[in-house]
Amino acid sequence: MMKRFLILLLVIPASLFAQMPKVARDARTWRQQHERPILGEFTALLSVPNVTRDRTNVRHNAEMLVAMMQRRGIAARLVTIEGANPVVFGELVTPGAKRTIAFYAHYDGQPVDETEWATPPFVPTLRSDSLEHGGQIIPLPPPGTPLGAEARMYARGSGDDKSSIMAMLAAVDALRATGTKLHSNIKFAFDGEEEAGSPNLQAILAANRELFAADLWIICDGPVHQSRRPLIYFGARDVVKLDVTVYGARNELHSGHYGNWSPNPALMLARLLTSMKDEHDRVVVEHFYADIVPLSATERQAIADAPDIDAELMRELWLGATESSPKKLAELITEPSLNIRGMSSGHTGAQASNVVPSSATAAIDIRLVKGMDPRLTQDRVIEHIRRQGYFVVENAPDAEIRRTHPKVAWVERGHPGLGAVRTPMDLPIAQEVVKIVESVRGPAVKLPNMGGSLPLAEIEQPLGTHTIVVPIANHDDNQHTFNENLRIQNLWDGIEVMAALMSM
Amino acid sequence: MMKRFLILLLVIPASLFAQMPKVARDARTWRQQHERPILGEFTALLSVPNVTRDRTNVRHNAEMLVAMMQRRGIAARLVTIEGANPVVFGELVTPGAKRTIAFYAHYDGQPVDETEWATPPFVPTLRSDSLEHGGQIIPLPPPGTPLGAEARMYARGSGDDKSSIMAMLAAVDALRATGTKLHSNIKFAFDGEEEAGSPNLQAILAANRELFAADLWIICDGPVHQSRRPLIYFGARDVVKLDVTVYGARNELHSGHYGNWSPNPALMLARLLTSMKDEHDRVVVEHFYADIVPLSATERQAIADAPDIDAELMRELWLGATESSPKKLAELITEPSLNIRGMSSGHTGAQASNVVPSSATAAIDIRLVKGMDPRLTQDRVIEHIRRQGYFVVENAPDAEIRRTHPKVAWVERGHPGLGAVRTPMDLPIAQEVVKIVESVRGPAVKLPNMGGSLPLAEIEQPLGTHTIVVPIANHDDNQHTFNENLRIQNLWDGIEVMAALMSM
Repeated sequence: MMKRFLILLLVIPASLFAQMPKVARDARTWRQQHERPILGEFTALLSVPNVTRDRTNVRHNAEMLVAMMQRRGIAARLVTIEGANPVVFGELVTPGAKRTIAFYAHYDGQPVDETEWATPPFVPTLRSDSLEHGGQIIPLPPPGTPLGAEARMYARGSGDDKSSIMAMLAAVDALRATGTKLHSNIKFAFDGEEEAGSPNLQAILAANRELFAADLWIICDGPVHQSRRPLIYFGARDVVKLDVTVYGARNELHSGHYGNWSPNPALMLARLLTSMKDEHDRVVVEHFYADIVPLSATERQAIADAPDIDAELMRELWLGATESSPKKLAELITEPSLNIRGMSSGHTGAQASNVVPSSATAAIDIRLVKGMDPRLTQDRVIEHIRRQGYFVVENAPDAEIRRTHPKVAWVERGHPGLGAVRTPMDLPIAQEVVKIVESVRGPAVKLPNMGGSLPLAEIEQPLGTHTIVVPIANHDDNQHTFNENLRIQNLWDGIEVMAALMSM
Repeated sequence: MMKRFLILLLVIPASLFAQMPKVARDARTWRQQHERPILGEFTALLSVPNVTRDRTNVRHNAEMLVAMMQRRGIAARLVTIEGANPVVFGELVTPGAKRTIAFYAHYDGQPVDETEWATPPFVPTLRSDSLEHGGQIIPLPPPGTPLGAEARMYARGSGDDKSSIMAMLAAVDALRATGTKLHSNIKFAFDGEEEAGSPNLQAILAANRELFAADLWIICDGPVHQSRRPLIYFGARDVVKLDVTVYGARNELHSGHYGNWSPNPALMLARLLTSMKDEHDRVVVEHFYADIVPLSATERQAIADAPDIDAELMRELWLGATESSPKKLAELITEPSLNIRGMSSGHTGAQASNVVPSSATAAIDIRLVKGMDPRLTQDRVIEHIRRQGYFVVENAPDAEIRRTHPKVAWVERGHPGLGAVRTPMDLPIAQEVVKIVESVRGPAVKLPNMGGSLPLAEIEQPLGTHTIVVPIANHDDNQHTFNENLRIQNLWDGIEVMAALMSM
């Protein structure tokens, strides 16, 4: 089935090329002549570590982006507030422009566990294909030599989300080189804290409303559809985190001398996590689903129209089942999730020893849909933990607290965002974006929201604008985990889409 | 309460000193004159890493022990079979001896996670008190200067179980120096694989029956009672391990794009572990308790006579509850346990990222009591996993297996031992051991079995002998975890006990 989609994809662009808007055709021709320098610049950008909390290197990335924009004649600078990684701002003023379109991407990345990567995350490595398909390391090709259709660049940030920045800046080059006349002012905003939930973005935009004002923000982040068809999202789930630690004895104890007397925190945590969902994978935290704004008829129809790729995706991902079956992925991402992103207690594998662990921790992320209040949702989960008999503390519990309560849970709240937003699909400017993307890349999959999270409310609230998400990365880019990669063809396609959107 | 016990302990030896057997009094006097060289030799022994699977260093330990015994005129050598860490054998032949007593200890240690230790596990470090009580690093005292009563040596193996070896060899020195006449042949057997369940001990003993033959094996391992009273165990629980891994998708997935569609293995594991016990902490694996040999009236009485230290132990360990309450620790360790010794999925803490993990693993150890068959018990747990809907494999499952089964569990069996044994408490030689220990150290706590595991069946079966466990380490020695330590006074006391037992 994936093969079938792939063939469709390969056929459509060829037959559509003549019908593509001139701006996209010009961008392709220009790109074909400049693949080597684009890849060179992309490699340099990916070489700078970008884990959000690594502020020194994140700053280095931001300064590199300013230089990259200034080289192109884009007025660029860093905009920030105390304690925040900077937003990289850039602007192309078009005399007589009737509107302003802002292009958003982010340059920070998720944490890395270097031991898990096939090649180091900040040594960008080109491969002939994906690792799963036996891709071999290959050098950057000589100028004029095209890469194979499945060639990929491996590095943290390659798919999420430096590829979007690279596509935008290469699109600017193409527009300039081909003398394309723009109709709108173009602004760029590259976020340096997206992977931490953009905790400062709202404040930065609110303090610089004029600078960031735009009629529409196009958000370039996340992957295209699993079928490789273009994808347009009109919203995103918000994300909020909770870390929960439960306790056994003060220190690890010999499991023989104390096993089945000293409480086992791993089992306590297992029971607590089990209590959060019923056997149908429905979250049973009270009122969890209470405030959700239902989907409109248009939105429900869009989901129904989305290609059914679940079976193929299961095959690709080695899955024998999915949660909440028979609901499909496209529908499930419009519902909230409660996900265990990590769980640990004692040691497993070679490091395991015969102990009753002292504590057990779960890292939880909750994806929220429109209507759900992030902090209230955290409160509801915490209340659920209390109802399981836990004394809940928001700092590490001391000896006295642990002695005086049979069950103690330390809950650390992640920074709550502003909640999920959805732009109405039938807004005229939204329809215009759909038309442009489809004119370049063929029929798009249109979904009410993406499953991932983007700081859309953080942009819409202070600026009073709308957001629409147009991703370019491949769906199998391993974003957020090891061996993140970008399928280079997605970068090439992305340049054409960005060029067309900039000329709207 | 612990303080009260402590005072009792400090008072009893002083008043009892005159009533102690001469051999013990002589050992004390000799020890007080030789503390510095004993600590020096102990430090040297603890400096050699001894993690069971680190075979090169384990061998180095074994050779060092042979040299230590030979220096004392004990005929010593390594006894082993292909693929095993050696047993260090030693013998003191007593002309005209009417019987043979073997002394067992082990020189290997549990794995270490160096990052968790206050000082490196193989850099033996003397402290004025326990870390929990603010103990400071102190140098070895000059000859003739006694250590404080709470001074401790920190190192892997300090409590478990090189202290036992050190007590035995220092006891030999004291017996020699004071010209004490022995009545029995004395043998020593120092195991190099105890922490891995002594998988080769039975075979090594079976192949050398004559060499290891003895009327009684005295096993010196584990801690004394939490009240600091001497402790005699007449058996031990056996231990058998199982590692269970359950699966989500082939690789970690973005928790936004795939959360609440791709199955979360951490939740699957949580549910599986939860299913293994009921709300009263009773194992609900079918037939888990079916084959247990009940305690005799003598054994039940011994448990009833044991000091009730649960409340004080809870205070010391920061516990607000215990499992299977209101049953006491002394009773619970005569029942089997099913313990999660480690659990992991994805990452927690700073390494956590927003993913649906790809797999989740639990490391389980089961403590068996007399009557339970180790392999059959593993089978029963595996059958329980199957009943939870899992397709169980005993090797890493491939793509096809994962695609064709909704729930897949990879179960890795630990090496099953020979099961738990208990020596009848009223056996004449058992009563003799009790009498000697109590004459030296005052009234002992006598329990049918220890909660921890020792290769007692591996000794009794091939040799047709009996085993009795006489531990010397402090109960708060952190054995099996980080910051393992020995309270030096326990070593001093142990020398007196060993000297008295050797002269029986």
